[in-house]
Amino acid sequence: MKKYAAEMIGTMWLVLGGCGSAVLAAGFPGVGIGWAGVALAFGLTVMTMAYAIGHISGCHLNPAVSIGLWMAKRFPAKELGPYILAQVVGGIIGAGILDVIASGHAGFSPSQGFASNGYGIHSPAGFSLLSCFVTEVTMTAVFLIIILGATDPRSHPGLAPVAIGLGLTLIHLISIPVTNTSVNPARSLAVALFAGGDFLSQVWLFWLAPILGAAIGAVVYGLIQRSENAIAPKGEF
Amino acid sequence: MKKYAAEMIGTMWLVLGGCGSAVLAAGFPGVGIGWAGVALAFGLTVMTMAYAIGHISGCHLNPAVSIGLWMAKRFPAKELGPYILAQVVGGIIGAGILDVIASGHAGFSPSQGFASNGYGIHSPAGFSLLSCFVTEVTMTAVFLIIILGATDPRSHPGLAPVAIGLGLTLIHLISIPVTNTSVNPARSLAVALFAGGDFLSQVWLFWLAPILGAAIGAVVYGLIQRSENAIAPKGEF
Amino acid sequence: MKKYAAEMIGTMWLVLGGCGSAVLAAGFPGVGIGWAGVALAFGLTVMTMAYAIGHISGCHLNPAVSIGLWMAKRFPAKELGPYILAQVVGGIIGAGILDVIASGHAGFSPSQGFASNGYGIHSPAGFSLLSCFVTEVTMTAVFLIIILGATDPRSHPGLAPVAIGLGLTLIHLISIPVTNTSVNPARSLAVALFAGGDFLSQVWLFWLAPILGAAIGAVVYGLIQRSENAIAPKGEF
Amino acid sequence: MKKYAAEMIGTMWLVLGGCGSAVLAAGFPGVGIGWAGVALAFGLTVMTMAYAIGHISGCHLNPAVSIGLWMAKRFPAKELGPYILAQVVGGIIGAGILDVIASGHAGFSPSQGFASNGYGIHSPAGFSLLSCFVTEVTMTAVFLIIILGATDPRSHPGLAPVAIGLGLTLIHLISIPVTNTSVNPARSLAVALFAGGDFLSQVWLFWLAPILGAAIGAVVYGLIQRSENAIAPKGEF
Repeated sequence: MKKYAAEMIGTMWLVLGGCGSAVLAAGFPGVGIGWAGVALAFGLTVMTMAYAIGHISGCHLNPAVSIGLWMAKRFPAKELGPYILAQVVGGIIGAGILDVIASGHAGFSPSQGFASNGYGIHSPAGFSLLSCFVTEVTMTAVFLIIILGATDPRSHPGLAPVAIGLGLTLIHLISIPVTNTSVNPARSLAVALFAGGDFLSQVWLFWLAPILGAAIGAVVYGLIQRSENAIAPKGEF
Repeated sequence: MKKYAAEMIGTMWLVLGGCGSAVLAAGFPGVGIGWAGVALAFGLTVMTMAYAIGHISGCHLNPAVSIGLWMAKRFPAKELGPYILAQVVGGIIGAGILDVIASGHAGFSPSQGFASNGYGIHSPAGFSLLSCFVTEVTMTAVFLIIILGATDPRSHPGLAPVAIGLGLTLIHLISIPVTNTSVNPARSLAVALFAGGDFLSQVWLFWLAPILGAAIGAVVYGLIQRSENAIAPKGEF
Repeated sequence: MKKYAAEMIGTMWLVLGGCGSAVLAAGFPGVGIGWAGVALAFGLTVMTMAYAIGHISGCHLNPAVSIGLWMAKRFPAKELGPYILAQVVGGIIGAGILDVIASGHAGFSPSQGFASNGYGIHSPAGFSLLSCFVTEVTMTAVFLIIILGATDPRSHPGLAPVAIGLGLTLIHLISIPVTNTSVNPARSLAVALFAGGDFLSQVWLFWLAPILGAAIGAVVYGLIQRSENAIAPKGEF
Repeated sequence: MKKYAAEMIGTMWLVLGGCGSAVLAAGFPGVGIGWAGVALAFGLTVMTMAYAIGHISGCHLNPAVSIGLWMAKRFPAKELGPYILAQVVGGIIGAGILDVIASGHAGFSPSQGFASNGYGIHSPAGFSLLSCFVTEVTMTAVFLIIILGATDPRSHPGLAPVAIGLGLTLIHLISIPVTNTSVNPARSLAVALFAGGDFLSQVWLFWLAPILGAAIGAVVYGLIQRSENAIAPKGEF
């Protein structure tokens, strides 16, 4: 039970911290943190939790990550259901806390978007559905390659939280204008439930594309990884 | 005595560096560092001091952190009083140095705010007392989970200063618009003493909420941590 | 073959992530990530891939880096051809994916620049050919010194990806206004092929200058490195 | 001789990278990196060089740091002269390369400031001489505490370049508006020689105050450090 609680708390933090920075702090005139600040916030939610609870649950915080790790034979099938449930519930709790906080500001309503993901007219810069699909598949595929490679015992697992967290920052630096960046179905569903309307009816893309991308990433890393007993060449990392 | 001196110097640096970046550099037209720069500055005060004095005092720099560590049985009760006193005195010295520096600029007065925390009309973006209370409790609770988890011997303690420092950066990226971000009673009191007026009369919230949050964080981490002798699962961090 | 695939994927990510952040997210009004965000994105592509595939291929992602490492006797001559080919192909794939994504935005055409490098009238701030040549040579020379020093077994190789990745961020913070920053012939060629016109006819500089700079960096590091068996002095890093 | 060459190259990089980002990239309309970007650039020059040449020379890059380390008995007196000479020469070479690059831009003249440090009418935001003196002394004192603490064998020396580099970033986030941030006499002299006029006649402050601050930092760390054989308490970093 402890690992499910850890996943729930971690995903709560990912949604509260990442979407919270977007809703509360991104667009303030003159001193707002902008998309670069939001990108940093999302990445740091994962990096901080990876050091805090990585030794408890592995710190997935993301159904696409759990599925990708299962495909890569790093995570048992029987844990998939409970992990994804804990992530979804945690994300909704995070969105709920954010709704309470943001509601203390005059004129706020979650129906204005609430940091939801979207395509077409709900893409931040108006990108087409095809662009949004390609973006989410590609970004999640590379995210899984980063996760699988950085936690490989032949890499430096103690620094994997830095690589993975700042990898998520990088993904946001590229793709916030396109889809508002998901790569995480639990994050997308959590805020869309509060935003409602079109935002909720578009959420299917942010389950389909990240999970497809994660599967591709798991397969690709499987093809390029060294055989188990290979020795790293001298003079390289 | 050495550890109390270290806590005093560290908290001096936290207030001088974090509040200093806000007072001196945040809003300069065109090239100012904005809230993202202030968030980075606060986090780096803790990260730099954790590497510099962590081995001397543990580098709490924050009464809420000392109380949370005591509740988690990581810090002895008899040290609570001296640590909190050293933190408060250090914070006031940092605010005093900042007052000397800022006073060399035409038109400066600490009564303009001096990076104080506030709610309602003194919240940077006008958030209600309830929003501010929920924000400070939640942010400090997660801050303690990050601190307790990242310094856990089953995590990677050598990188705990990165996780904790950038965790404080993340907390600021989310919550500067709400309360100007406290999560630290010593930081709040130090600048409020110079700002005076409403800023001082609102400082009670920034003792109550962070300490309550720290207590919650300590209890939650106690519930989710592995039993002492558990082995980390293979293939995870 | 696995290491060539890894180099191809890594260079795909460098171009998609670095140039993608520039094309998609840099100039958005009010919340765009600006040149600082683009600088961070380029650096994080290298840092994330160094942890993900460093143990597979060494993670060069850059013909100038491969040539510099060969000159420093850290990389065999027979691998130079396949590595550079993989990097060029990977970069083109990355640019192709970016073209698909960006084409889903009304009014986009790669002929507007597509994050190409340039000098004179195609330098972002109008710097002369001489300035651009000196910048690219110097930046790549220091980049190689950072790479050779940080991966030296007498340094801390586990943190080399942080030093090298953020070193590339630093290089961009300095030189985006001058040449849009290359230091990487594969990155320059990949986007110039899509941009065409003047951008393609200027690409020679971004093969010549980075390779010359890398050679200089390899020679300089060879002159200043300690002899093989030297012991680091006490009290230093 | 190798260590002097390393100090020269490292200080060349500090001036070229830090002052270069300020001169070339800080104020560009819309996408410029601002003071936060300059702060990051200065810090990353030190972090990258600490991993690249720390094992060769200790990577001081700063006469005030060399003097502070000597006062703390971490650096021999006979090396002070050659190190400071190498740092000054390296800084001047870095400023010279920057002058060549910047001169390829219409309307550039180093007499416009060239990222020089200054007080009074040459302080970026018009701070008084007293403010500037207090700022440089305090910032350099804490910088030395960070350097001495982070390289202490009881801390985590492998991460000292991160703490020290990002500590310099933090110092810039606070103090660019006050003095344009020196804490480094070699950096100040190098660009003032090119800027000339008032900038050169004010450079005395940026030798006096950083060296005084470094001496204070060395004494303070000497007072608070644990005795040689002390064991770090359990449950702390």
